[in-house]
Order: sequence, then C-alpha cells, then structure tokens
Amino acid sequence: MSPAPGEPATDPASDAVVKAMARALALGESVRGTTSPNPPVGAVILDAASRPVGEGATQPPGGPHAEVMALRQAGDRARGGTAVVTLEPCAHHGRTPPCADALVNAGIAAVRYAVADPHPLGAGGGEVLRASGVDVEAGLLGDRVAGGPLRAWLHVTRTGRPHVTWKYAASLDGRVAAADRTSRWISGPQSRAEVHAMRAAADAVVVGTGTVRADDPWLTVRTPEGELASRQPLRVVVGTGEIGDSARVLDSAAPTLRARTRDPRQVLGLLSERDVVDVLLEGGPTLAGAFVRAGVVDRIVAYVAPILLGQGPAALGPSGVSTITEAHQWRVEGVTMTGRDVRISAVPATGQGGG
Amino acid sequence: MSPAPGEPATDPASDAVVKAMARALALGESVRGTTSPNPPVGAVILDAASRPVGEGATQPPGGPHAEVMALRQAGDRARGGTAVVTLEPCAHHGRTPPCADALVNAGIAAVRYAVADPHPLGAGGGEVLRASGVDVEAGLLGDRVAGGPLRAWLHVTRTGRPHVTWKYAASLDGRVAAADRTSRWISGPQSRAEVHAMRAAADAVVVGTGTVRADDPWLTVRTPEGELASRQPLRVVVGTGEIGDSARVLDSAAPTLRARTRDPRQVLGLLSERDVVDVLLEGGPTLAGAFVRAGVVDRIVAYVAPILLGQGPAALGPSGVSTITEAHQWRVEGVTMTGRDVRISAVPATGQGGG
Repeated sequence: MSPAPGEPATDPASDAVVKAMARALALGESVRGTTSPNPPVGAVILDAASRPVGEGATQPPGGPHAEVMALRQAGDRARGGTAVVTLEPCAHHGRTPPCADALVNAGIAAVRYAVADPHPLGAGGGEVLRASGVDVEAGLLGDRVAGGPLRAWLHVTRTGRPHVTWKYAASLDGRVAAADRTSRWISGPQSRAEVHAMRAAADAVVVGTGTVRADDPWLTVRTPEGELASRQPLRVVVGTGEIGDSARVLDSAAPTLRARTRDPRQVLGLLSERDVVDVLLEGGPTLAGAFVRAGVVDRIVAYVAPILLGQGPAALGPSGVSTITEAHQWRVEGVTMTGRDVRISAVPATGQGGG
Repeated sequence: MSPAPGEPATDPASDAVVKAMARALALGESVRGTTSPNPPVGAVILDAASRPVGEGATQPPGGPHAEVMALRQAGDRARGGTAVVTLEPCAHHGRTPPCADALVNAGIAAVRYAVADPHPLGAGGGEVLRASGVDVEAGLLGDRVAGGPLRAWLHVTRTGRPHVTWKYAASLDGRVAAADRTSRWISGPQSRAEVHAMRAAADAVVVGTGTVRADDPWLTVRTPEGELASRQPLRVVVGTGEIGDSARVLDSAAPTLRARTRDPRQVLGLLSERDVVDVLLEGGPTLAGAFVRAGVVDRIVAYVAPILLGQGPAALGPSGVSTITEAHQWRVEGVTMTGRDVRISAVPATGQGGG
C-alpha cells in the first residue's frame, strides 16, 4: 500500500526505521565514555526511499552532535528523508547550534527518536521540528536506549549527580578475596575483559585507600595490544587513609583525583564539578558499604564465580543494616553467563536510583 | 514409508516415542523421594500402533517397578507394542521378579530406555531383552533423566554414598542472615516453595546443632493445606553440640537421626545404612564448610536474593581454603530467576561429584 496523502513517506514502524534505530543505538554505545557531559547519541539518516545514507555519533565535548555528523555524511540525499536518533534532537544553542535547525535546513521530512530529552535546556526539539512541518514520533527502542547508552546521562539529568555502577567479582559464597587476601583471579577471563570494557566506557573509576594499599591497582584502560588507550577515565581514590607516593594509581598514565573524604555524596559532588556522568565504583567492602548506605549506588554488576572460599572478606561491608527487615532492596535487571561466571545486574527496587 | 521387513514397527525417534519418554521422565520425577533405595523410574507402554495404553512409576520399596505398573494398565494391548522406560529394565530377581521377563511375557516388541543401569546386580536387562528378540535402543533423553529423577540414585550406585545437595539462600552480598542473625525471609515466596518441594523429594534433610539452636527449624514437609505430608524425609541433626529436648526437630512429626559426629563421611555412612539416597543439606556455614572440605557436596542450589546486608554470617564457613589458588572449583549447571531471586545450580568442576 502506498501512503495516503498527508501520511509520512516512511512508516514509523517499518523495518528500515527499526534497523536504523538499532544501528543508532550501537553508534551511541560506541562513543560512551567520550562525550560527557554530553549524551552519547547515535543517528542514522534514511533517504526518501528509506535507504541509509548517513550515520554518526556524538563527538567529544565541543564537537558536532550525532545528527550533524550523520547529515554531513548524507549530504543532499537527506532531503525528504528520515532522521533516526536515539535522543530527541536539541533545540538550544550550546557550544554547537541546535540539531533541530540542522535537520530542518537539510530538508528532513520525518524524525524518529527513542528517548525524549528530559534536560531543561535541551528539551523542545520535537516541538521545534513539528512546528517546521516535520513528522515526528518518539519511543522506538526507548527502553533499550534509556537502559543502555543513555542510562547514566539520563540519570545525571534527572538527579543532578553522576550515575554509579558498583561492580564486584565474588565467589559463590560472596567473598572477594581468600583468607590471605589473595584475589587473582576470582572471576574468569571473559568477565575481566567485560570489566575492562566497562572501565573504558566510564568517566571515572573509584576505589578506596584500602584497595590501593591492598592491591595497588593501576586502574588504566589498555588496548588489546596492552598499550595505554588514548582516553583514560579519571582515577579517583577516596578516603582519609594514607597511600604511598609510589602507588601505581598516582602515576602519570592517567589523571587521578584524591578525594580526602569518607562521604560518598561529597565524592560525587567533586566528580560533578569535573563533568563526570558515569562512575564505576570498584572499591572494596568498606567503600561499597558507604556508597550503599548513602543510597548512591544506581546499579550493581556482580560477577559471581563458581568457586568456594569459606573465608575472606565479603563483597560488602557495613551499610547500615542491623536486622533483616532493614535490608537494602534491589531488583534483578538481568542475569547472564559470562564465561564460567554468573553476571547479575541489579537496580534499586524502587525509583530510578538511590539519589 | 512403511518399515522394511525386520525393522521395528515403531521408529525409535518417532514423535510418539519422544513424547512417551518425556512422560516417563515426569512420572519418574513424580515419585522421587518415595522409592529409595530403588530408583524413581517412569514407564509408558505404546501399543503396536504407537498409542499410549499404559503408564506407571516405581512403587515404594517392595512394590512393583514402573514397567510392571505400566504393563498392568496396558493389559493385552501391550502385545507387539513398545515399552518406553527412563532406566534399563532390571534382569535380576530382587524383592520383585525381573522387569525384563515381564516385558517379554507381555509380548513387547521394542524397548526404549533413557539411561543404562550401572548397578552390578540390575544391569543386563537390555541383553536379556535382545536375546528374547526384542528390539532395544538406549539413550533417548538420557541426559535429562540422568541429571533429573535418576541423578541421586545413579550417584549412590557409582560412588557408594548418598548424593548431597547443599541448598542455601543468601543475600546478593553472600550473607545468610543479618547482623542480629535474623533471616526471615531472605529469599522470596517462590524460592521457599521450591525449597519445600526439594525437601519433599529428599530422603533426608541435614542440619547442624548450630542451626537447631539458632533457628529451631521443624524440617517437616507440609501439604498445601498446611498439614503434615504422609511421607516425611528423615531429619538429621549433625554435631557434638547439645540441643535442647524441646527442639522442634526432635518431635514426633517425623523421624529424626541424631548424628553425634563432626565428620561428614561418617554422617553419610549412617545415612547409607538407612537406605538414604538423596540428601538435602540445609545446614549453616559451619556444617556446609565441613561437607565442602570433605568433598561430599555433589550439587549446590543457591537462592541469591536481590538484597544487601553488609553484615551477618556468610553462606559458607571455613572449608580448608587459605589462598585463592586453593579455591574449590565448581561449574554452573543452570541459572534461572525464581520469583525475584536468582537460582544458581552448580556441580563440582571435575568428575561426577566430590566422592
């Protein structure tokens, strides 16, 4: 059936649009960790015949947004076409001109975006586009985008503080090290590779002074060849305890912030000032306990290895629970096998997070 | 295509046979916990036209085996038909006559069984049947049967000691109770119902004196209406510690064995003498640690609840591991959601068990 007069040339639920949104999602995911404080967005331009003719993702701060990158690639073929974007195009003048204007100027006839922009400054792109006669629909793959590449950015936009993922690797009996504190390796190679990828996509990696003293971690991101990646997350050492000058985390391989406080909310305040959106908490039981107690852990990613230890420190230290009815309640978001390990992802049982 | 001369009337891979074996598996599962020391077997008889005409499961010790129950229901319709059985039919005279003879006498033309009988006395039924001109094939759904209803019986036949499943419910951070030792309820209602079903299908339920003193569990099986089930697993209290006479586990609702030893192998020896095949270990960290250390835990079923405690006892106490390279290695057999909880089933990483 050809569209009736007045209907959009591109069916919003058509295969081409769904495929384009899946591609836009992957594009957004691919730049996660490089765009903060801006959202990692992906965009695909379909021409008037629904063929993909351009794609792009958000460039580092100050650079073009995803829509502009995709429009540049599409050129004149964008005219009469459809822009498929993971986030509602912006309508405000920031460091770059509004994307809504760019789409109108390029002659785009329809826009499909996954997630509405909750940002007080950015919102309104959909309305601007409609006012210019563009056919606009929202929501396609919205849950996957909101829970995926835009999760941390949406969280900071809504709550004003960075999104915190607490990651740990524990034995089946819940221990993060053996009786003698050895822990290499509790989780398997596939889990460790995944954690490395999580670190690469984070803006900051947080540990406590206890972990620095016990494990002397480097907390850097390496390429598959073992070289330092060009972009490194901010290394953050939290706590009032002393660490030696020779700690590897203090070397020049990546920037390091020494947060001399035990208050997680103060730590997150310091990180907000540095445009940090996405935090990976890799701390030990004490620091994790403080973050859980403060209600500022937004996601848990636990790698549960099929080993038993029977002694050694637990994953989580005191977090304000003295009896079972006071337990912190979470909701399992996903369970998968990662190599030989079980990966459990969980979010707070109520609301959008602890903040 | 009609079968060539000499070929069996029933295609061994036909839908009817596969469906019959799935039914036989369910029949065997349905009598788990009522047949020890005999295996919980299920059988279905198909007539010469592959229609199910009889089914049965192993009766309590001294009663008929599954094949005989199914043959009784089928009557004359068994002639020229196929017997579909989860275990190789027995060929020896025990408390009941051999099933292989019963099948031949009933005029059965073909036998399909899932798992070969490893028992030195029982084995050979397949050969007896073949020698009588019956078409015999083995292996259909073999893995599901061997890992399902026949798991514990196969284990005891191979190793000479009961199969032990260690079950526990822990928080995401690996604790089985809060700081004040409260633990009701760590796992959700669906997990608790599952555990109750596991207990109903076990021959014995084992706890330590510590758990009796701390929780005073009853360890009985109740019907959905809350009444005591007619069959109760043996309650076993392990350890040299004292428990009060008024402990609920000592009441007359079910038999109770007081095993005044700390040696898990001694405990299992006592249970073998009582024809126990399938043991559910519900003990606390100390007893579980002793069983793990002794290498006599054959399966772990962990219910991991999405709650955080930060303090309180861990699921497993000392089990002989002092450094990470000595960790007990397991293999995850299955991961499922059970209500809000994650259910992880694991088996020893090498071999058939710790024994």
